[in-house]
Amino acid sequence: MSEKLSTQPYKGTRDFYPADMQLRNWFFGVIRRVLETAAFEEYNGPMLESLELYAAKSGEELAGKQTYNFTDRGNRHVAIRPEMTPTVARMVAAKMNDLTFPLKWFSIPNMYRYEATQRGRLREFWQLNVDIFGCDTYEADLDCIIAAINILRAFGADESMFTVRINNRRFFNDAIAAIAGTDAEGAKAVSKVIDRKNKVPREVYEKDLTALGLSESQIARIDALYGMSVRDAVAVCPASVGAQELLNLFEMLEKLGLDRYCVFDFGIVRGLDYYTGTVFEVFDNAPENNRAMFGGGRYDNLVGLFVKNAKVSGVGFGMGDVTLENFLITHDLILSSFGRGVKVLVTRFDDVPYESYLRLVETLHAAGVTASLYLGSKKFGKQIDYAVKTDCTHICVMGGDELARGVVRVKNLATREERDFPLSEITTAF
Amino acid sequence: MSEKLSTQPYKGTRDFYPADMQLRNWFFGVIRRVLETAAFEEYNGPMLESLELYAAKSGEELAGKQTYNFTDRGNRHVAIRPEMTPTVARMVAAKMNDLTFPLKWFSIPNMYRYEATQRGRLREFWQLNVDIFGCDTYEADLDCIIAAINILRAFGADESMFTVRINNRRFFNDAIAAIAGTDAEGAKAVSKVIDRKNKVPREVYEKDLTALGLSESQIARIDALYGMSVRDAVAVCPASVGAQELLNLFEMLEKLGLDRYCVFDFGIVRGLDYYTGTVFEVFDNAPENNRAMFGGGRYDNLVGLFVKNAKVSGVGFGMGDVTLENFLITHDLILSSFGRGVKVLVTRFDDVPYESYLRLVETLHAAGVTASLYLGSKKFGKQIDYAVKTDCTHICVMGGDELARGVVRVKNLATREERDFPLSEITTAF
Repeated sequence: MSEKLSTQPYKGTRDFYPADMQLRNWFFGVIRRVLETAAFEEYNGPMLESLELYAAKSGEELAGKQTYNFTDRGNRHVAIRPEMTPTVARMVAAKMNDLTFPLKWFSIPNMYRYEATQRGRLREFWQLNVDIFGCDTYEADLDCIIAAINILRAFGADESMFTVRINNRRFFNDAIAAIAGTDAEGAKAVSKVIDRKNKVPREVYEKDLTALGLSESQIARIDALYGMSVRDAVAVCPASVGAQELLNLFEMLEKLGLDRYCVFDFGIVRGLDYYTGTVFEVFDNAPENNRAMFGGGRYDNLVGLFVKNAKVSGVGFGMGDVTLENFLITHDLILSSFGRGVKVLVTRFDDVPYESYLRLVETLHAAGVTASLYLGSKKFGKQIDYAVKTDCTHICVMGGDELARGVVRVKNLATREERDFPLSEITTAF
Repeated sequence: MSEKLSTQPYKGTRDFYPADMQLRNWFFGVIRRVLETAAFEEYNGPMLESLELYAAKSGEELAGKQTYNFTDRGNRHVAIRPEMTPTVARMVAAKMNDLTFPLKWFSIPNMYRYEATQRGRLREFWQLNVDIFGCDTYEADLDCIIAAINILRAFGADESMFTVRINNRRFFNDAIAAIAGTDAEGAKAVSKVIDRKNKVPREVYEKDLTALGLSESQIARIDALYGMSVRDAVAVCPASVGAQELLNLFEMLEKLGLDRYCVFDFGIVRGLDYYTGTVFEVFDNAPENNRAMFGGGRYDNLVGLFVKNAKVSGVGFGMGDVTLENFLITHDLILSSFGRGVKVLVTRFDDVPYESYLRLVETLHAAGVTASLYLGSKKFGKQIDYAVKTDCTHICVMGGDELARGVVRVKNLATREERDFPLSEITTAF
């Protein structure tokens, strides 16, 4: 064909060249280490799922709009997963009787969302998902929040860089019911207005609450909750189960010295129909990037979508790779040194048998030293050039003279030091 | 909804529960270690690619049939990648002037093929792709073959378990031209018949060759090539560049003692339109599974599909995760011990402050010990049960009595040994 193909990746997706991949592997390696140390176990599921899995959670229309989906030749409606939660709920449901609860699970799947691309919002992304299934009490919420904090700390982040803003949906509902003097149904209507607080002009907000029967002083009392400490806030409805959960959570965070990362925030709601208890969002404190990076909370009984009479509560959070990378860049937390171990290029001369070089490389590999033999037979200068451009730390030189003396000359490319090593002791050079 | 959703994964895909995922992470970890030691660098690309990328290589119809593909809302024809080669060729083409050749690259992407499912052939699979770009000589072919052998050896496989069958497409064409006495075009027609040798009855094979003008003795000479050693075979056309490549390759394999894994096989062709030099396939030697597990070879200038006048040769191989897993199971090479490090469950009593347990777990984590606190507050027996079922190696017991004495009782669940450790020295227990 004379028409050349485009070298651009598909819209909203990224190519990961080795330097990008090394960074991503470093990210994910740090995250895996933190979570595995806390006895979370990794799982994964398929990229393609039945579309109805998402429709059941977000409604047919939204699921169809925000996912890549199509009909396969077996007339199945299939979606490329836009999130992991329905998959993990399905997996838990499928083996509910074989699994030992509570489960502490995580995954770092790639997924697709069909949406306009913008900073931090791509069509293909990777997302850490951390969940605990089968523990109804605040201890699991705490475990998740500690995991989120420990991940960021493992990258070197401190309390000046991020804040975990915590609320509780049970408390939120109870507090509104207490102030508005409504029943649960009435509180729900009020909650819907409050959820839109920051998205509409103040006068619209007030008008909507007034229409639901709230007085000026009731509106003021709700306003006041936003600036309160957790202890002042729970005083509004101390008998609320959510209030007690908040108190327990903050007490433990204080005792562990983790309260320096955390704050109570009545404004954290996270979608009205999904979360049922603790909710939290982790904010970047940098003024130029001050917004929620990721969050999560307690959602009850997703497994019930699959299994009759099932009751498995869950609590968890998700964190996108792009968001994390932006955070680490903003706070200069990407170590330039990561992955920079020894890397050796064995250079080659035509007057030395090729197998001598192959054996040298084999010896280095057997000792676990990252090494490669220059492929091809260009001039020495070109080989050095290759070593420098491919981030090698050392080169090995073994010409006819060195071979005759049974030595290898090792040159450190950073210090420019050179030294001969007997071939039999070459691994001691690195 | 009262209609419950299915818990089955989509047809031809798998759920990876923690035990499955641990196995897969172990597989991929071994592979990464071998390749990174040999200075291969990992890359990755998007799951979605333009459909024309595959059409350009395999033809519109085949590409449409064997891939999941659809038209997006921007009227782009998009495919879920069925293989990695077009992606990597695109990536190399996009940065051709910035990259330092030869490139030694690998990736372990997930991909989809739209096909009937059978043993070892699923719709979603992971495939290791190893490629060297920009080295035209046999040294790169050798480097790839050594990498393939070293991966299998790293899993504990030996020469009794697998064989690398090697041929050369240049030699194949030259040998046929020499025997058939045809030009290159005539040799191509003969090659097409030979490529189908094992797929048609012997008499059809002979009739087709006769129709192309081959005599009985010429057919016999071609037959004889199948049983020959590499040195006897190359004597058919010693001036062939492919013959010289084969000789060089086998000479080095012998000198490195790797010839015990390798054999020349004139029957290895691997698709007529793609490969241009060395080709190889790795066979499982087990009688019940004796077939090609994976293979690869030299393909010239895929980058030319994207960049005018580009000439970047490549050599590489691909290996599917299911194939590898079947091989390791067949030869009993899956270590039951992988990943079985220390895993501690800290049990919990209600009369001890919760923060005491949280601090104990924090201390263990800081020392890198995998540990979790039992979530919830069930009876001790239930907690032990949980520890056993979740493969914990140890439990920590700290009741009111131990707390008062400042000790933690550590029980090894395998040996049933119990011992008290001062709280301040708890990390020495593991």
